[in-house]
Amino acid sequence: MKRTNLLQTLSIVLLMVFAAESLEAQETKATWIWYPGDFEIWLSNQMQNKRTERGAFFPPFWRQDSHFVLIDFHKEFVLDESEEVELYAEGQYNVKLDGKLIEGEPTTLTIPAGTHKLNLKVRAQDHVPAIFVRGKTVVSDGSWLVTNEDKEWIDETGKASDQSGTAWLRAALWHFNSPENRPSAFKLATEPDGAVSMEQQGGRWLVDFGKETFGFVKLHGVKGQGLISLYYGESKEEALATETCETLDRLHISGQAQGDTVLELSKAFRFVNVEVDNGMQLDSVSMLYEYLPVDERGHFRSSDELLNEIWDVSKYTMHLTSREFFVDGIKRDRWIWSGDAYQSYLMNYYLFFDSPSVKRTTLALRGKDPVSSHINTIMDYTFYWFLGIYDYYMYTGDRAFVETFYPRMQSLMDFCLARRNERGFLEGLPGDWIFIDWADGLSKQGEVSFEQLLFCRSLETMKLCAEIVNDKQGEQQYAQLAKALKRNIFASYWDEDKQAFIHSRVDGKPTDQVTRYTNMFAIFFDYLNEAQQQGVKKHVLLNDAVQQITTPYMRFYELEALCTLGEYGVVLDEIRDYWGGMLKLGATSFWEAYDPNKQGAEHYAMYGRPFGKSLCHSWGASPIYLLGKYFLGVKPVSAGYATYVIEPQLGDMEWMEGTVPTPNGDIEVRVTTNEIKVKTAGGTGKLLLRSKTKPTCEQADLVDLGAGKYEVVLEGTRTYTVVY
Amino acid sequence: MKRTNLLQTLSIVLLMVFAAESLEAQETKATWIWYPGDFEIWLSNQMQNKRTERGAFFPPFWRQDSHFVLIDFHKEFVLDESEEVELYAEGQYNVKLDGKLIEGEPTTLTIPAGTHKLNLKVRAQDHVPAIFVRGKTVVSDGSWLVTNEDKEWIDETGKASDQSGTAWLRAALWHFNSPENRPSAFKLATEPDGAVSMEQQGGRWLVDFGKETFGFVKLHGVKGQGLISLYYGESKEEALATETCETLDRLHISGQAQGDTVLELSKAFRFVNVEVDNGMQLDSVSMLYEYLPVDERGHFRSSDELLNEIWDVSKYTMHLTSREFFVDGIKRDRWIWSGDAYQSYLMNYYLFFDSPSVKRTTLALRGKDPVSSHINTIMDYTFYWFLGIYDYYMYTGDRAFVETFYPRMQSLMDFCLARRNERGFLEGLPGDWIFIDWADGLSKQGEVSFEQLLFCRSLETMKLCAEIVNDKQGEQQYAQLAKALKRNIFASYWDEDKQAFIHSRVDGKPTDQVTRYTNMFAIFFDYLNEAQQQGVKKHVLLNDAVQQITTPYMRFYELEALCTLGEYGVVLDEIRDYWGGMLKLGATSFWEAYDPNKQGAEHYAMYGRPFGKSLCHSWGASPIYLLGKYFLGVKPVSAGYATYVIEPQLGDMEWMEGTVPTPNGDIEVRVTTNEIKVKTAGGTGKLLLRSKTKPTCEQADLVDLGAGKYEVVLEGTRTYTVVY
Repeated sequence: MKRTNLLQTLSIVLLMVFAAESLEAQETKATWIWYPGDFEIWLSNQMQNKRTERGAFFPPFWRQDSHFVLIDFHKEFVLDESEEVELYAEGQYNVKLDGKLIEGEPTTLTIPAGTHKLNLKVRAQDHVPAIFVRGKTVVSDGSWLVTNEDKEWIDETGKASDQSGTAWLRAALWHFNSPENRPSAFKLATEPDGAVSMEQQGGRWLVDFGKETFGFVKLHGVKGQGLISLYYGESKEEALATETCETLDRLHISGQAQGDTVLELSKAFRFVNVEVDNGMQLDSVSMLYEYLPVDERGHFRSSDELLNEIWDVSKYTMHLTSREFFVDGIKRDRWIWSGDAYQSYLMNYYLFFDSPSVKRTTLALRGKDPVSSHINTIMDYTFYWFLGIYDYYMYTGDRAFVETFYPRMQSLMDFCLARRNERGFLEGLPGDWIFIDWADGLSKQGEVSFEQLLFCRSLETMKLCAEIVNDKQGEQQYAQLAKALKRNIFASYWDEDKQAFIHSRVDGKPTDQVTRYTNMFAIFFDYLNEAQQQGVKKHVLLNDAVQQITTPYMRFYELEALCTLGEYGVVLDEIRDYWGGMLKLGATSFWEAYDPNKQGAEHYAMYGRPFGKSLCHSWGASPIYLLGKYFLGVKPVSAGYATYVIEPQLGDMEWMEGTVPTPNGDIEVRVTTNEIKVKTAGGTGKLLLRSKTKPTCEQADLVDLGAGKYEVVLEGTRTYTVVY
Repeated sequence: MKRTNLLQTLSIVLLMVFAAESLEAQETKATWIWYPGDFEIWLSNQMQNKRTERGAFFPPFWRQDSHFVLIDFHKEFVLDESEEVELYAEGQYNVKLDGKLIEGEPTTLTIPAGTHKLNLKVRAQDHVPAIFVRGKTVVSDGSWLVTNEDKEWIDETGKASDQSGTAWLRAALWHFNSPENRPSAFKLATEPDGAVSMEQQGGRWLVDFGKETFGFVKLHGVKGQGLISLYYGESKEEALATETCETLDRLHISGQAQGDTVLELSKAFRFVNVEVDNGMQLDSVSMLYEYLPVDERGHFRSSDELLNEIWDVSKYTMHLTSREFFVDGIKRDRWIWSGDAYQSYLMNYYLFFDSPSVKRTTLALRGKDPVSSHINTIMDYTFYWFLGIYDYYMYTGDRAFVETFYPRMQSLMDFCLARRNERGFLEGLPGDWIFIDWADGLSKQGEVSFEQLLFCRSLETMKLCAEIVNDKQGEQQYAQLAKALKRNIFASYWDEDKQAFIHSRVDGKPTDQVTRYTNMFAIFFDYLNEAQQQGVKKHVLLNDAVQQITTPYMRFYELEALCTLGEYGVVLDEIRDYWGGMLKLGATSFWEAYDPNKQGAEHYAMYGRPFGKSLCHSWGASPIYLLGKYFLGVKPVSAGYATYVIEPQLGDMEWMEGTVPTPNGDIEVRVTTNEIKVKTAGGTGKLLLRSKTKPTCEQADLVDLGAGKYEVVLEGTRTYTVVY
């Protein structure tokens, strides 16, 4: 009972959080606001430029955009009585009341009773122009309108233009709810943490923090003057390899700097090898753990301790890689990669359900117009960006986000459409990276079927978003394009003999190769009929002769395809084998790539460098998604979980229980071999199950669907128990 | 003799300056370099946001763009021997030698003998990423390549991409030729200047600087604590009108601030009214005159002292409005307006010939893609931007500039082309300002013929630039578009009865109105045949029933049209009357608008404000252009004065003499009623003259063209004397 109450309270709080976030909602509290997408672009520049490689600045190799430097904010208010308003801005600014400019940069303003229009215009080059306005009823919030070109010209008689051509958008916000809590001062949270061991040998200290972590190293009791070098290691081997470790710092200690010192940049490590000049001394080493505060709403526990541990380490991996944005890995690249982020979004829906992080990451990836290259320069990553928005809408129901950023979706799609070849396919043009996966000898030449498949799904996403924003013409156009492309894909790549899509066409001719990528995506995109599905399952997915996948990145989709095909046992075994394999090697977070055939420190090598591999990579955390979506079995059917299904799969577990977050609150599921208990959280769901005997449910009717399938309709927030 | 030598020396120096500026030239001296166009955008943001109106920040109402924040610079060098190189950057940076990243931010580097590639990658948010590299032969200059997306990805084996899709541009530069002289620290020059009078009355000092000026007011010997208010006036009336003057400053003087103090922002004024709190004292007031150092290459003197004074005041007006960029007016708006700048460019070719100022202004106006509005939001101003590039090329022959920025010309033209209506014309869409001129009751509705005419000329400019950059397809396309539009303009607007273009068509039907704009531009665009020209001259230009022009802005073109028609006498009279009229009213610089029918302080009013009018406006300085081009008669025939004509027109003057700058040096012309003396400066020119009797020329053959016309071919740098 106590737990249920707590959850109910939590749901209410969370509903409030969501209401506060929605751009539609009426706000009564002031918050810092800015031009949509600009804070995210600015913050991503800050974050992505913090990467260093062996002490050198190591920025991304794609275009970095900037916020708009001059923004006009306005809102019209109807006041019953006059009101004193506080005004704050990040940048140089002016204030207009009813179009009349006020001298100086006023910090307070009295607005008389009646209808009044308040404008603030702010300029800032080195951070995002933002405002915070606070009166009794006049507050800055998501209902304000903003523009980057106000077009408020006057004619020679002093008459102002009507500004009918100005594109006003709803202001954006996050969680900066006081004048002091300025967007430009945003920092992640930190918390002190200690090492588990520290070995000294002469002027060298090898410090072990016991697990993969991220933060600012703190040196205590530094004595003497000279150079201190810090060599970071995700493995002990890396920290000791001073010539080849991926990251390092050097501190020049002068007289004043003695004592305690905190490193300037946060780093990823488990081990730190601190080497000091002759005659220097050190008392101890600790760290400030740096993290994004998020709620842990998703949970999973089962009778299988290995699965539990895999889920826990996945969760920790997600905590480490969910930062200012969802990054790929914390040692490297510490950048926002669309393919990696796409998986983080999906895991997030089963763990934090932190929508601001999805939105921040989506906006940072997209940047600004004009589009001059694929996202991260990678063609497949452009398409994951579209897919991510579709999922975001399905999981959250946030129409306002789609409405605000639909133009940026359109221009990115225009970029893609303009690059089609004469057969309507996309090939890699100069400057396009065809990534797909890290896999030996994988061909990127010609018209790769995988890219066309993602392109098709992206067009379908555009069709759906056009519908949301009521762009009738776009809806029709994208639907036609998607349909034609899908037909073309089947005609050009589906091989009836091989019962599979072939990998590519080069110079207009099909190649002989079959790879897993196109085939497994076609399954969960639901592009195949039943016979084709079975063909793919047999000839590709369960066929060892087809090149194996060695990255957790593509393993994610492979296992999702197997789940879609009902191969739960195979999937659980794979999870235990592959992720369990990393745990056996001492992993405390999951890796960028894992090949069970490698030995010892070979595991750490990649990109031709002995420690090039990231040992904490977000795409390694996929069990969170698979266990939540396909074993606890909770997924939305319509936007924002207005309707949803729960279709639990116990596999070979004796029991499992868990929580899946939704916009309406958390759904709890507990499954044993003869009972399913579900606590719902708003919306209308369907609990689907299979049973040899007819189950019972006291809380609702149980529909017999035939062939051993049963259904219970779940309404509102209640607890249902099905005994079978 | 002495003068000639000086001019020769000057020519050589100037040639060196031009060589140093050309992106093609081999540099041997290091200079700061950056991504083309970025410094200009950054600096224009700095400048345009310095405008205040009655103490409030008053930024532009159009979009302000930003520089790219992350730039890669590289060059390949072949060294005979190893070389030590100094490295400087504005921003966070890294250095790669032959693709290998060097630890930290190295400030020196030794490059071994042989072929080596040096990369610097720089990030800066609040100013433009720039580098300065200086070795014996390895120096940063315009031969380096830069990009904003280097696409230097690596595969899983560590192999780097070939970067074939990366758009590399030649680096841009100006005059920052030492490590200390950083682009981000750019400031105009200043020079102390004193007041001519200062009247004290209680706590008020009225200071007169004797003429319109611009700079930072300096208060000497401030005593006491409290508020000092400064009210600026271009007129005495304005400085005294504390409630309605356009600009003011307030200084809060505390204990520490006593003594001398210089105001933070520079302002335009002739008078300053300083008012201090009770008990405060002041010794005196002076100023720091702020200016762009430019050479005065153009000169004009004649037997007519009024014309000489008009030319001098025009020159001073140009000095005041030629700043970080060519601005409209110095009190207001202090912004870069394309229509105003276009005229400044033309005047500049006859005064400073300062090409960097033309380039800076052109780039600042254009900003970045995507194009989301007309330049300055004004349709006509978009077209002047195109025309300005054509003139720039004609006067300077700078192909490199056109080559680098042709893509920005294309995208702006795409924006225009996409806005044509079903008849192929451009009408004002929401957000478009149709300016044309400040004139009572001027209609901006429907399809305005003036806009189509400028559009046509812009398409012709695109055709020419396509030719320069060898874009065959573009050349053909733009030529066809221009031809079709010209045909359409004649068919839709030329009225045979009226012998004029009509002003507009509304709802597809011609209006009855005739205005001067389209008609006078059609003359110097050379769109009319002889009969049409005479028709326009009689029925429009010399017809008082057609609405008169009251701004120097359009008077510029009206007089140019009259010059084209050979009406030199009319033009000289107009200049004496109109500009002379302002001088009679005490003008020390020329105004934004002048209506001889107004009285006293009425002259200062505009925009519904008593002192809204700018009394120092660049478009007021057009006599410089008219006297240089049509009276001294010097103009290029092909790009960069490779060929040119000199066709002096003495009008009713007894004599005139002057200098016209060209890329090849200065051309000097002296004309009396019976002698023309010309000193040429490279290229091939033609001296054209009319004479009743056959003239003589000792230095060259004189060709009799018939009908009293004669021609002398001018070669290289020589002096020619024609007696007639």
